[in-house]
Amino acid sequence: MKIIKTISELRTCIQQERSFSKSIGFVPTMGFLHEGHQSLLQHARENNDVVVLSIFVNPLQFGVNEDLDRYPRDFERDEQIATKNGVDILFYPAVAEMYPKEMPMTITVTKGVDVLCGQSRPGHFDGVATVVMKLFQLVQPTNAYFGQKDAQQLAIIMNMVESFNIPVTVIPCPTIREVDGLAKSSRNVYLTERERIEAPFLYKTLQEARALIQAGETNRTKVVDMMKRRLAQGLGQIDYVEVLSYPDLEIDDTLKGQIIIALAYRYEHARLIDNDIIHIKEEE
Amino acid sequence: MKIIKTISELRTCIQQERSFSKSIGFVPTMGFLHEGHQSLLQHARENNDVVVLSIFVNPLQFGVNEDLDRYPRDFERDEQIATKNGVDILFYPAVAEMYPKEMPMTITVTKGVDVLCGQSRPGHFDGVATVVMKLFQLVQPTNAYFGQKDAQQLAIIMNMVESFNIPVTVIPCPTIREVDGLAKSSRNVYLTERERIEAPFLYKTLQEARALIQAGETNRTKVVDMMKRRLAQGLGQIDYVEVLSYPDLEIDDTLKGQIIIALAYRYEHARLIDNDIIHIKEEE
Repeated sequence: MKIIKTISELRTCIQQERSFSKSIGFVPTMGFLHEGHQSLLQHARENNDVVVLSIFVNPLQFGVNEDLDRYPRDFERDEQIATKNGVDILFYPAVAEMYPKEMPMTITVTKGVDVLCGQSRPGHFDGVATVVMKLFQLVQPTNAYFGQKDAQQLAIIMNMVESFNIPVTVIPCPTIREVDGLAKSSRNVYLTERERIEAPFLYKTLQEARALIQAGETNRTKVVDMMKRRLAQGLGQIDYVEVLSYPDLEIDDTLKGQIIIALAYRYEHARLIDNDIIHIKEEE
Repeated sequence: MKIIKTISELRTCIQQERSFSKSIGFVPTMGFLHEGHQSLLQHARENNDVVVLSIFVNPLQFGVNEDLDRYPRDFERDEQIATKNGVDILFYPAVAEMYPKEMPMTITVTKGVDVLCGQSRPGHFDGVATVVMKLFQLVQPTNAYFGQKDAQQLAIIMNMVESFNIPVTVIPCPTIREVDGLAKSSRNVYLTERERIEAPFLYKTLQEARALIQAGETNRTKVVDMMKRRLAQGLGQIDYVEVLSYPDLEIDDTLKGQIIIALAYRYEHARLIDNDIIHIKEEE
C-alpha cells in the first residue's frame, strides 16, 4: 500500500493507473475507520483494479460550534485497517495541501439541505460537496462508495454527480448493523447500559414504518405519527422523524416512488441516526 | 466533424478518445463565432489530437434583465467555421439536455466578482463557473482555451481549476485586434462612424498605462487617474477603469507581481471592454 500525502504525487500515480485503463474504486473518509468503512472498502476491492482510500478531516464541513480539533483520529490503526482491506493507495493530505488558501468559490447546495441533519448543521453539506468535488477531480474514480447510513450526504453526492455530470458512478452501500439491528456507529459506545438495550427499537420503528407502507399506507402524516408515538416511549428525545422522496429529499404528502424514512434520536451522551429507503411499487 | 447533441453520445465518444490516450483540446463558446473564437480553435488544433468545440447559450449566466432570447445565434455559419478550423467534435446541446431540472446546487464565486464586469452582473460568474464545471466533466479535456479579452472570466476559470483540482490545463489566448488596435468584438458593428474612428484610443490608453508602469510607476491611483483623464476626452462614458492583481482580482495600492489594467467604456449603442495583463519585475 502506497501512502500519499501530496497532490502532485497522487496525480502522477493516478495518471499512471489511468493510462493502463484500470478501474479505480474510491472510498473518501475522515478516518477513524469502523466496520462501516471496512464494508465500503470491501465493496471497492471486489469491483475495481485499484482501491483508493482518502483520510481527510475536512474543516469546511464543521460549523463554528462544532469541535473540529476534537474529532477522533488514529492514523496508525487506520493504516492497519486499510492494509488488511486491500487498499492500494491511501491518500492522507494535510489541510494546507487541500486548502493552500481560502477557497475563492465553493459549492452551494440549495436543495435537500433544510431537512434531516441539514436543519441543525447550516453550511455542512456545502463543505461536504466542495471537498468531495475536489477529491473526485484528484482521484478520478470509476466508482465511489458511500454508506446509506449517512443518507442525506449520499443523496447530495448523487445529486452533485448528476448535476455536474461528473464521470463517476456512485455506489450506495447498505448500513452495517449489530445482531440486534442497531446501526453500527462510533457513537454507540457513549450509550448507557439501559440505552444500549433499548436502542435497537430505532431500527424496529423503521421496520414497522416500512411494513405499514408496504401494507398500502400512502399518507405521510400517518406514518410519521406512528413513528413518533413509538419513539416517544423511549428513554431519549426525538430530534426528527421524516419521510421524504429520495434522493430529492422533498416532502410529498402522498408517498410514492423511492422514499426515505429517517430518524435522529438523542440519548444522554449520543445522538443516533438511522434510516430505511423503500421503493413503493405503483398500483397496476 | 461529428455534431453531437446528447450527453450520452458525447460520453461514448470521449471515452473512446481517452482510451487511446489522445489529448483533447476544448473551446467552450456560446456560438456566433468570430475571429477571437477562431484563434482559440487554432491554438487547440495545433496542440491536441482531438479538438472539441461546444456551442451552448447558457441561461444560468444571464441576469433577469439580460435578454437571453435575443442573444445572437447562427448555427449554420458556426458549423462552417468549426469545419474550416479543424474541429473534430461539435457539442451542441439543448437547454433541456444540460439542465433537465433545476440545479440542486451551483458554484458560488465569492472572490473576484465585486470588481470589473462582475459589479453590474450579479450572479453572472456563478452561472459561468457552473456551466464550465459541467462542460469540463463532460469533455474531460487535456487543455481548455479561453480568450484574455474576457479577463475576469478567464481569471475565475483559472481559480476554479486550481480550487477544485480539476485535471485540465487552462490556456489563456491573446486578444485579437483590428489593425488599428481595437479589440475585435461582435459589438464593434454597433459603433457610429465617429465612434469607430475614436475607439482605438481605448487600447492606446492601456498601452500608455503599461508604459507608465514599465517606467517605474507603482502607485495604483496615479495609473487609474491618468487613464480616467485620457478616457474623459472621448465621445462615450467610462463604465470602469481598474488596476488589480491577476488572477486574484484584488485591489493593491502598490502595484507588484502580475496585474491587469482593465476598462469598460460605453458608446451610444455598444459597451466595449479591453484589458492588458502585465508582469511587474521585482527590483533586484
